[in-house]
Amino acid sequence: MERGVVLLDFWPSMFGMRTRIALAEKEIKYEYREEDLRNKSDLLLQMNPVHKKIPVLIHNGKPVCESLNQVQYIDEVWNDRAPLLPANTYKRANARFWADFVDKKIYDLGSKIWRTKGEEQEAAKKEFIDCLKLLEGELGDNHYFGGKDFGYVDVALVPFYCWFYAYEQCGNFSIEAECPKLIAWAKRCMQKESVAKSLADQEKIYEFVLHLKKVFGIE
Amino acid sequence: MERGVVLLDFWPSMFGMRTRIALAEKEIKYEYREEDLRNKSDLLLQMNPVHKKIPVLIHNGKPVCESLNQVQYIDEVWNDRAPLLPANTYKRANARFWADFVDKKIYDLGSKIWRTKGEEQEAAKKEFIDCLKLLEGELGDNHYFGGKDFGYVDVALVPFYCWFYAYEQCGNFSIEAECPKLIAWAKRCMQKESVAKSLADQEKIYEFVLHLKKVFGIE
Repeated sequence: MERGVVLLDFWPSMFGMRTRIALAEKEIKYEYREEDLRNKSDLLLQMNPVHKKIPVLIHNGKPVCESLNQVQYIDEVWNDRAPLLPANTYKRANARFWADFVDKKIYDLGSKIWRTKGEEQEAAKKEFIDCLKLLEGELGDNHYFGGKDFGYVDVALVPFYCWFYAYEQCGNFSIEAECPKLIAWAKRCMQKESVAKSLADQEKIYEFVLHLKKVFGIE
Repeated sequence: MERGVVLLDFWPSMFGMRTRIALAEKEIKYEYREEDLRNKSDLLLQMNPVHKKIPVLIHNGKPVCESLNQVQYIDEVWNDRAPLLPANTYKRANARFWADFVDKKIYDLGSKIWRTKGEEQEAAKKEFIDCLKLLEGELGDNHYFGGKDFGYVDVALVPFYCWFYAYEQCGNFSIEAECPKLIAWAKRCMQKESVAKSLADQEKIYEFVLHLKKVFGIE
């Protein structure tokens, strides 16, 4: 166990998965603590008093909040192996831009796909695919977003892949039919142990989404 | 003129002001190009095809988009002077956290103050002040957010100061009465030439807000 690394997390969280992948890439052993979001632990409330959200990375007793911030922190602390941000300054800025794009667009649009119906859902599906196509354009013919090596934008985006099945079931559409290159990229990422062991099972995510729909009284 | 630095911007933009401050801190001479947002230039659309928003920093012909990304890029390229991000890894993560907090909360709440009325406005004012108080708590008795030196969180937040007068006029409240320490901090920042010359005049911002209210048919 690496001295004093604790992750407060919740298994279906794509944000938590990013941090899990980064820790796995760096081969950091850590204590994983599952949170009950309807009954948050005192530790969570104390470590993230501003947002009160998982994931929280605790390193030597001090919290780092927000998943992309955690990934950057992990990359800076354990900078002797498996670099995630590119070394080149311009490429770093480009990587931060696309990770931020994922944050601003993909989560909200994905949520709309399973939370809404009719026209609202159709609009969300269309914008979701448009955003994935932009990402596919950025990927181009590269193996990963950063080029030949797995890196920051891959970490930011790939956790959404295990939610795609739920989006497709709820939205009655095929993401692969629209964005085959992006799905091929996701499958490449899944070949990596760091990714495969950090992502939840897509069937379990779908069950979880069906459970949430019931709880929220949707449909 | 530093070789090939161009900023596409719009004078009242608090996001553009961040980049202006960072460039001024680093003493980079650049070409400032004012954009007409109702009639965006081909260069803007070409340099930021994803968001189509100002500010865009163009360095040697290549665009860097999103203001906080620009500030980090500027800090990394011109790393021989006036550091903006702290050198310490944990402090860097903390600085990114608070800059992100400003992005997620302050702009939207400030906009709600001048765009809405009645209960919605009261709720926005309350949350706005709550967020400023959290920032005031983070500032503590420090001179700047990073401690004794002006840095990243200061750059992220201080541009909003020139909008405070408009928020106060539209919301009929006093930010200084609620957050005196934060206003004292803002005034300290304004003593710096890099800040003073980058921020717009608060009366002009208020006139601009009144103009927007007319355009949008508010009140």
